[in-house]
Amino acid sequence: MTSFDKLVALFREFPGIGPRQAKRFVFFLLSRDKEYITSLKNLIEELPKDVARCASCFRFFQKRAGALCTLCSDKNRSESELMVVATDTDLDTIEKSGGFKGRYFVLGGNIPLLPKKKAPPIIRLKELLTRVEKDSAAELKEIILALSANPDGEHTSDELRKALSPLASTHGFRISTLGRGLSTGSELEYADSETIKQALTHRG
Amino acid sequence: MTSFDKLVALFREFPGIGPRQAKRFVFFLLSRDKEYITSLKNLIEELPKDVARCASCFRFFQKRAGALCTLCSDKNRSESELMVVATDTDLDTIEKSGGFKGRYFVLGGNIPLLPKKKAPPIIRLKELLTRVEKDSAAELKEIILALSANPDGEHTSDELRKALSPLASTHGFRISTLGRGLSTGSELEYADSETIKQALTHRG
Amino acid sequence: MTSFDKLVALFREFPGIGPRQAKRFVFFLLSRDKEYITSLKNLIEELPKDVARCASCFRFFQKRAGALCTLCSDKNRSESELMVVATDTDLDTIEKSGGFKGRYFVLGGNIPLLPKKKAPPIIRLKELLTRVEKDSAAELKEIILALSANPDGEHTSDELRKALSPLASTHGFRISTLGRGLSTGSELEYADSETIKQALTHRG
Amino acid sequence: MTSFDKLVALFREFPGIGPRQAKRFVFFLLSRDKEYITSLKNLIEELPKDVARCASCFRFFQKRAGALCTLCSDKNRSESELMVVATDTDLDTIEKSGGFKGRYFVLGGNIPLLPKKKAPPIIRLKELLTRVEKDSAAELKEIILALSANPDGEHTSDELRKALSPLASTHGFRISTLGRGLSTGSELEYADSETIKQALTHRG
Repeated sequence: MTSFDKLVALFREFPGIGPRQAKRFVFFLLSRDKEYITSLKNLIEELPKDVARCASCFRFFQKRAGALCTLCSDKNRSESELMVVATDTDLDTIEKSGGFKGRYFVLGGNIPLLPKKKAPPIIRLKELLTRVEKDSAAELKEIILALSANPDGEHTSDELRKALSPLASTHGFRISTLGRGLSTGSELEYADSETIKQALTHRG
Repeated sequence: MTSFDKLVALFREFPGIGPRQAKRFVFFLLSRDKEYITSLKNLIEELPKDVARCASCFRFFQKRAGALCTLCSDKNRSESELMVVATDTDLDTIEKSGGFKGRYFVLGGNIPLLPKKKAPPIIRLKELLTRVEKDSAAELKEIILALSANPDGEHTSDELRKALSPLASTHGFRISTLGRGLSTGSELEYADSETIKQALTHRG
Repeated sequence: MTSFDKLVALFREFPGIGPRQAKRFVFFLLSRDKEYITSLKNLIEELPKDVARCASCFRFFQKRAGALCTLCSDKNRSESELMVVATDTDLDTIEKSGGFKGRYFVLGGNIPLLPKKKAPPIIRLKELLTRVEKDSAAELKEIILALSANPDGEHTSDELRKALSPLASTHGFRISTLGRGLSTGSELEYADSETIKQALTHRG
Repeated sequence: MTSFDKLVALFREFPGIGPRQAKRFVFFLLSRDKEYITSLKNLIEELPKDVARCASCFRFFQKRAGALCTLCSDKNRSESELMVVATDTDLDTIEKSGGFKGRYFVLGGNIPLLPKKKAPPIIRLKELLTRVEKDSAAELKEIILALSANPDGEHTSDELRKALSPLASTHGFRISTLGRGLSTGSELEYADSETIKQALTHRG
């Protein structure tokens, strides 16, 4: 295989990239000057050195003094609520909403309902249990399972609830999930029965 | 204008129908046999005679003995909850979900936030107030405003809440709206900030 | 079945209309005043009386003195080219382009490649052969098969070519089909191989 | 700016990549092992060394003995037809169709109709004229301008025709463009007027 084809193959592993776009990426690189190529290569090489996983929430963060990310070292965030999210991207979406001021834990992905063809994500369930055990000694009052409202997300919620329930009983924290209902912009006429039932249950 | 063009113009007023499809409808009618045309014509003529608006909830129903539709005459439905919906179609969607066993009121449409080019719907606000006044004497405990989660639906909710609040205070019923949150199938990563905040507020 | 449900069933036969939209059509009719309903009913009833099929090209036209439509009675259109189209709508699309000044023949639909669940269209193949036989005595020089570039359209083209070839040999007219190639707005990068080969063959 | 953000910025320059996907790419890289990162970095670095532009057609090709790509050194391809394409990707699409057995020239992009915000492509017009001048001495009979059927592609065609016309007169080759018409799968009913006129002109 030529280096061209090898690079196409690597780009095809990028999320959401098919064969045609992988090839366009390579042609794009060929069209760029030496400076761009050098920057790209250097940054790809440096990235793992500059970015670390937070020892507490496991999100990626630009390395700084200490093992904790800015969110985990922020004294103004509440210790009583811990939100479990699947990925760094989900954490970013929640942070951008400005609606949560507690702590996070990045699970690493969804626990898939059905085995996937691609390599499954590494799920940090054991690390979550350790973290919760430790937090519970302090002031943990609620774990919020913030997973997607799709089959994999619901399966992950179910599995986490099962795994966390014994700790919840022992330490007296509650386990909650994100509210379901009409999402912004949706018309009642086109809502599915499950969403309507949830919207009725969570009316307020 | 020819009868062909006149019929195209009438079909263009049908919901969701543009000029091209209106024309296809007329060609479709021309291709059908006498029997189909006669049935269609007769049913269109008979429809207003066979269908009546319920005197209580204002939905359309196939005429039967009495002025009330099957839902309003069903003794097994609770009198303590009244759900206000914009249209007959929304009512159908709710009924199909099987999640609600109270009474309905069909408002007639949304109260538009901005004036529309098309003729505005006839909003039965006065009829709603009369109905609520009467129900309140009995056992009304809650009015559920089941409007869409879009600007017009939210505006309608706001206006109804304003209009119903005095009655709510006097008669001691609560006014609720459908829960907002992640709708079935939605991925956290793509959720907007408002939906996330609502999903957090309504977590359970 | 109620008249409501019967009317929903008739609207579902309209081209491109599913169950939900059929129901919205009935609710729409219920919301309209007597005047609209009467106009609609009358026009549907009158349409077959006001519109006739042209005795020559078989398109529908608003009835007038004589058995021929405006296109077939237009002396300025060439008798030497006859374009066969599947439907009245296709004829309209061609006329709107302004690119053709010959005569038309409306076949009635495509000859389906595979049997369809729905009732097949009535194909006027015999009428086409009669028409061509008659025209050939005069000055017919070319038959243009203007069918869609999809499997059914191509199958129809093939079948018509087979049926017309003997007459073409006897009477000395040619049979052509619409040129294939890049359609307006299409990017070369996304073109399929067949389109590219045709675009190369028809380069000019 | 952190190395994370710098890398997001570089990925945003990739064709078709917005801010959200650029960020997902970086998270994706962070999730990959050292082996993948090293391969990617090395291939990006090596690519410009392994791939060269063909001295004749200017397409990229995996370096080999000589300055010509496999297509330009293939003795079985005709010297009488030269096809001008905008990009390497367009050339690939044509080759995959198997419909062309002549020579190519990769222009570098379209000559934009309107100035673009992004850096314009480098158009090898001078190189094209030099190439044509040289080929004309030999056996060039036709230049095929194989551009997209959109405004930029048409503008490029027009500009190239203008630039090449003097040489065409002097050396006696023709200039052609790809045929326009119905592309595979398109329905006549939805075809635009320009496509229909072209399909009529190129009927055969």
